[in-house]
Amino acid sequence: MPDLDRLFRPRGIAVVGASPDATKIRGRILAALKEGGYPGALVPVNPSHREVQGLRAVARVSDVAGAIDLAILAIPAEHVSSTLIECAVSGVGTAVVLSSGFAEAGPEAAALQKKITAIAAEWDLALLGPNSVGFLNADACIRATFSPGAQSAPVRAVKTPRRAAIVSQSGGIGFAIFNRGVARGVGFNLVATTGNEAGVTTLDVVDYALKLPDTGAILLFVEGLRAGRRLGQIAGDAAEKGVPLIIVKVGRSAAAHRAAISHTASLTGSEALYAAAFGHHGLLRVEEQDELIDLAAAFTACPPAGGKRIGIVTITGGGGAWLADRLEAGGLEVPELDRATQDEVRRFIPAYGSASNPIDTTAQALETGGRIKSIEALDRAADIDQIAVVASLADVGHLAPEREALMALNQRRTKPLVFASYTLPSADNLAVLDEAGVRCYTSFGGVARGLAALADYPTTRARVLARRARPTPKPVWFELPQGKGVVPEYLAAPALAKAGVPFPPARLARGPHEAAALADTIGYPVALKVQSRGLAHRARIGGVALGLHIRPEVEAAYGRVTEAGQRVTAEPIDGALVQRMAPAGLEMMIGLIGDAELGPFVVAGFGGGRVEVEHDVFTAPAPIDDVEALERLRGLKGASRLFDAPEPLDLVAFARLVAVVSAVGVAHDGRLTEIDLNPVVVYRAGEGVLALDALMVLKED
Amino acid sequence: MPDLDRLFRPRGIAVVGASPDATKIRGRILAALKEGGYPGALVPVNPSHREVQGLRAVARVSDVAGAIDLAILAIPAEHVSSTLIECAVSGVGTAVVLSSGFAEAGPEAAALQKKITAIAAEWDLALLGPNSVGFLNADACIRATFSPGAQSAPVRAVKTPRRAAIVSQSGGIGFAIFNRGVARGVGFNLVATTGNEAGVTTLDVVDYALKLPDTGAILLFVEGLRAGRRLGQIAGDAAEKGVPLIIVKVGRSAAAHRAAISHTASLTGSEALYAAAFGHHGLLRVEEQDELIDLAAAFTACPPAGGKRIGIVTITGGGGAWLADRLEAGGLEVPELDRATQDEVRRFIPAYGSASNPIDTTAQALETGGRIKSIEALDRAADIDQIAVVASLADVGHLAPEREALMALNQRRTKPLVFASYTLPSADNLAVLDEAGVRCYTSFGGVARGLAALADYPTTRARVLARRARPTPKPVWFELPQGKGVVPEYLAAPALAKAGVPFPPARLARGPHEAAALADTIGYPVALKVQSRGLAHRARIGGVALGLHIRPEVEAAYGRVTEAGQRVTAEPIDGALVQRMAPAGLEMMIGLIGDAELGPFVVAGFGGGRVEVEHDVFTAPAPIDDVEALERLRGLKGASRLFDAPEPLDLVAFARLVAVVSAVGVAHDGRLTEIDLNPVVVYRAGEGVLALDALMVLKED
Repeated sequence: MPDLDRLFRPRGIAVVGASPDATKIRGRILAALKEGGYPGALVPVNPSHREVQGLRAVARVSDVAGAIDLAILAIPAEHVSSTLIECAVSGVGTAVVLSSGFAEAGPEAAALQKKITAIAAEWDLALLGPNSVGFLNADACIRATFSPGAQSAPVRAVKTPRRAAIVSQSGGIGFAIFNRGVARGVGFNLVATTGNEAGVTTLDVVDYALKLPDTGAILLFVEGLRAGRRLGQIAGDAAEKGVPLIIVKVGRSAAAHRAAISHTASLTGSEALYAAAFGHHGLLRVEEQDELIDLAAAFTACPPAGGKRIGIVTITGGGGAWLADRLEAGGLEVPELDRATQDEVRRFIPAYGSASNPIDTTAQALETGGRIKSIEALDRAADIDQIAVVASLADVGHLAPEREALMALNQRRTKPLVFASYTLPSADNLAVLDEAGVRCYTSFGGVARGLAALADYPTTRARVLARRARPTPKPVWFELPQGKGVVPEYLAAPALAKAGVPFPPARLARGPHEAAALADTIGYPVALKVQSRGLAHRARIGGVALGLHIRPEVEAAYGRVTEAGQRVTAEPIDGALVQRMAPAGLEMMIGLIGDAELGPFVVAGFGGGRVEVEHDVFTAPAPIDDVEALERLRGLKGASRLFDAPEPLDLVAFARLVAVVSAVGVAHDGRLTEIDLNPVVVYRAGEGVLALDALMVLKED
Repeated sequence: MPDLDRLFRPRGIAVVGASPDATKIRGRILAALKEGGYPGALVPVNPSHREVQGLRAVARVSDVAGAIDLAILAIPAEHVSSTLIECAVSGVGTAVVLSSGFAEAGPEAAALQKKITAIAAEWDLALLGPNSVGFLNADACIRATFSPGAQSAPVRAVKTPRRAAIVSQSGGIGFAIFNRGVARGVGFNLVATTGNEAGVTTLDVVDYALKLPDTGAILLFVEGLRAGRRLGQIAGDAAEKGVPLIIVKVGRSAAAHRAAISHTASLTGSEALYAAAFGHHGLLRVEEQDELIDLAAAFTACPPAGGKRIGIVTITGGGGAWLADRLEAGGLEVPELDRATQDEVRRFIPAYGSASNPIDTTAQALETGGRIKSIEALDRAADIDQIAVVASLADVGHLAPEREALMALNQRRTKPLVFASYTLPSADNLAVLDEAGVRCYTSFGGVARGLAALADYPTTRARVLARRARPTPKPVWFELPQGKGVVPEYLAAPALAKAGVPFPPARLARGPHEAAALADTIGYPVALKVQSRGLAHRARIGGVALGLHIRPEVEAAYGRVTEAGQRVTAEPIDGALVQRMAPAGLEMMIGLIGDAELGPFVVAGFGGGRVEVEHDVFTAPAPIDDVEALERLRGLKGASRLFDAPEPLDLVAFARLVAVVSAVGVAHDGRLTEIDLNPVVVYRAGEGVLALDALMVLKED
């Protein structure tokens, strides 16, 4: 892994293709770096000019002298790979490629991208892009981007204890989030747009941002995660540090899918797997830019919340009622205040105010300091976890009388505190709140989102850390069958049995008489199932005969099931599996999906013939252990059928098998694309489970 | 009903209590009127000054000379009623009372409010308030308010064909909505804050706003509707004119309820009844200020939409994908474009763009007019109903090159068109869009809400108009029993039977022998039910005996059920009802709720003993006709049990009975607070229905 600190905090920067014309992208990037006040060496690289924007230019990267760590490439796509090699040879160890015309531009250009990926790997070059819009590092005074979102918004002085980082695959969106966050008083330490991710990926940058000293939240915009297998590790690191990962993932709709393929060449992964991975690893998923900021504002400016009980202070009954509605709709509580707090509050609000919750101080109490005193009372109240103030901040000078008190309050208070302005706040009021380290929301729903995230995060984090504290389940190895595509049950089951999956006794028969002889050995009743690489599902084509009790039945069935198979596949029929019929029990299922980007996922839940109708299963990234499997079973819609069964079921054995299958997926990640064990019959406690069928699908080795 | 035109367009205004100090509320209101450029006579009324803010003052309202139609009262509550009488006597026919200290301030002050309500009624005075924050009438140049929300925001020049009106019970919120709407380019003709509604109510103002020539949407903020019975009439008028009523109703949470009671003294009605009334009458309910503006922007600036198929034009793949996701999540469609449109679009976008939907023109196409041409192609495309453009409008000058083309486009285009900026738009770009009559959204979710509302409104409107075109069901009169509280079945059922509710034969018995004799007459088997005003529910206390087949059973049961009744009520036991057992059938229920503010509601759906568990019923404001009752039955969760029953059910008779009960509610509005017919047994088609039990609750006459 190349050194990202050299990329994001270079000692010197070369801008390759820098133009004297600052209205062009090639010129704007240099101008932006100058305006940003970058203190290191800045070298334009342009063979046509001796000087660019007042800086001495060199003709080629190899002419660069001194400690230049980063080259920013604003040149046509066809010159990128040779320039990257030049960079590497000249000791410029990192590069940002702004150029487009790579994987997003069709198959031919995709080959160009593969080439630069290979160059970056060979030369250990930290490569951001191509199709990146650059990055911003606030502490290093680097605005290495031509994005108007970065330039129009000055980075406001931020007095919050922590700042947010932004990692976005789309450059326009990345700096738009920055643009909006700055307008709402959120401080940012790093904004990076990863574009096509030929080198540095989203998760690489997240890993880097987690190492910055004051990162309080990381905001992500992704269309698809490359190397998503690392998500668990990175999300665990984030939980360790108490830094929430707040993510927007697009590509859910058919239309979005088309756009993602044609634009960043990022293969949009299956929505269900992303949802499972985000949920499992504790990422906070939101849907809008404003929602990203709602959460970032809360996490960077507020101390951890003790819970979901919100105290409201308002100057208008209507606004207080509205916020209370929205908070409760968002899963929070607005409890009545205890008697002592109400009595206290009544002393500093007018008689026609309300000392309940919301506390309606009325506008009159502003002149007597009643609002600040109410906030302080809530900060002390035992049954309140967080505080929201409903105010009208359009009125210039509104907060001026409370300025000193707000600053003093911020030193003392122990609970999250936010303002919610129902009018659009004026600049001077925002400045007072900024100075006091308090964030201002302009939507009641936004307050609900922010405070609910604060309330829920400790639980989410604890869940991730508890998993991390348990030993990671070991991969379960066994020899996979040869070839690719469907592996018939007679080969799949013995392989899986070696991994610990229990099946009823079974053998392959290649003719009716052999089938009957095997049945005699195995014991009646038996099932007979046609076997062929061409047959993934056999029951519905008549390829399965169940409950055969005597030899003649077995002999007759052999012909039936193999002929049924022959009718639908041109692949050779290998014979029929003779399997002892298992006793009845609760029919569950366990499956495995190997995703190219996100890795293996285990699926488990209610099985049998109605699995697709009921659709009562959970999906989790592999591996998971028995503890987690049991926990997830409790979350199924039909959980009471499992846990409140009249006779206790062997859910311990079932959970163990889920863990085993997940560990099999990890061992054979990349090769195993699908396993279906359906049904897996669960017997009474202590009597175990049996997989009655096995389908396996392999990718080419 | 007093003349609201005289209130909102007065020939002259007296400001009672006007102060020379414009920093005080009493001074600010006069200053605001002057600044707003009100062209009529402005007279300060203040006994302590000869001149106020440069205007000649008079000492008392009766000293006002000339055509003064409106008095704005900014004086202590205790002087309001005498001043109102003075106004009326002096021919000042309308008043806005800004003073607080009325019903919101406790029971004593509530008496003061009753007094001014009586004065307004007696003198036919149009009275806005008390506790109002005033109003704004853009065309009359009246800013009769001290709200900072009105003063900080200039009314932008609006080139849209229609404007919005705002009616808010909370003054702060009303002008906050205005403040935000203006910032987003929405034009407003009227903003009125009704406060405690001692005189003019929310619905009065809505009625007035519907009569203004260019009202395109009415935005409402309510905590509770007084005189909510008129909602149906007003909502029907709005549908007639094609003006959507977009409403925020707070008071859902327990906390909000507390705030509403203590603040505006508006009794927050039951949430379920409000939801039923809004849904029935086609109001568009939203939850946030920004959502009010999302819809107002769409309805005032866009032509009616043909449907839900959205065409997207974007300069960034990520933004296009994101918007597509949000549109589809909002119930809209982003269909692939037809071949011909794709071919056309490909001619004016670069090869690495996308001609599908979203159309990704790339930033490059902006220089060649590709964006405008793409919008025009979508405006012509047969399979697209509305158009959304994803852009980054933070960049100063971004839209300047397209200014002329956008203006020309606006003359030609036939479909709704909105811009969605992922960066915060600069003022110059907003000005270009304003000039072109195109609204700019800054959230993808907001675009989805706006366009979905445009797509859905025609259907909602048609439903309301279809109802209006049918004859209004006539109230069903019959003589109600005397008294108040619970009316026992033996009195309720005969009364309801006169209205047309079918019951099995039944008679009241006052002793065991009479019960047996009655059973002989009525015919076996019978049910026996204890009767008393003290017993609303009898089955669960053992007060009901079912399936009695012979005399001795009836005689024995009489003692059991009456003793069971005596154990739980001190009220006299009137006897036991002997009722013929009815044949089995499907058990449904019909109920009636009489709400003090909103009037009668009918409830119908699946009944029997599990009614509260299943909770599969609908609620509708009364009256509804058979057609509507049948339609609503189709919307029940278990509708297939009704409409796909193996033997067709007599749903016609059931729907007819629902209509009858609703008409009973209208006839006895104010007196009838509850009817429960449960079960109502539905038989096979043609065989009718039978109500097996009747509970009625009356209010005092």
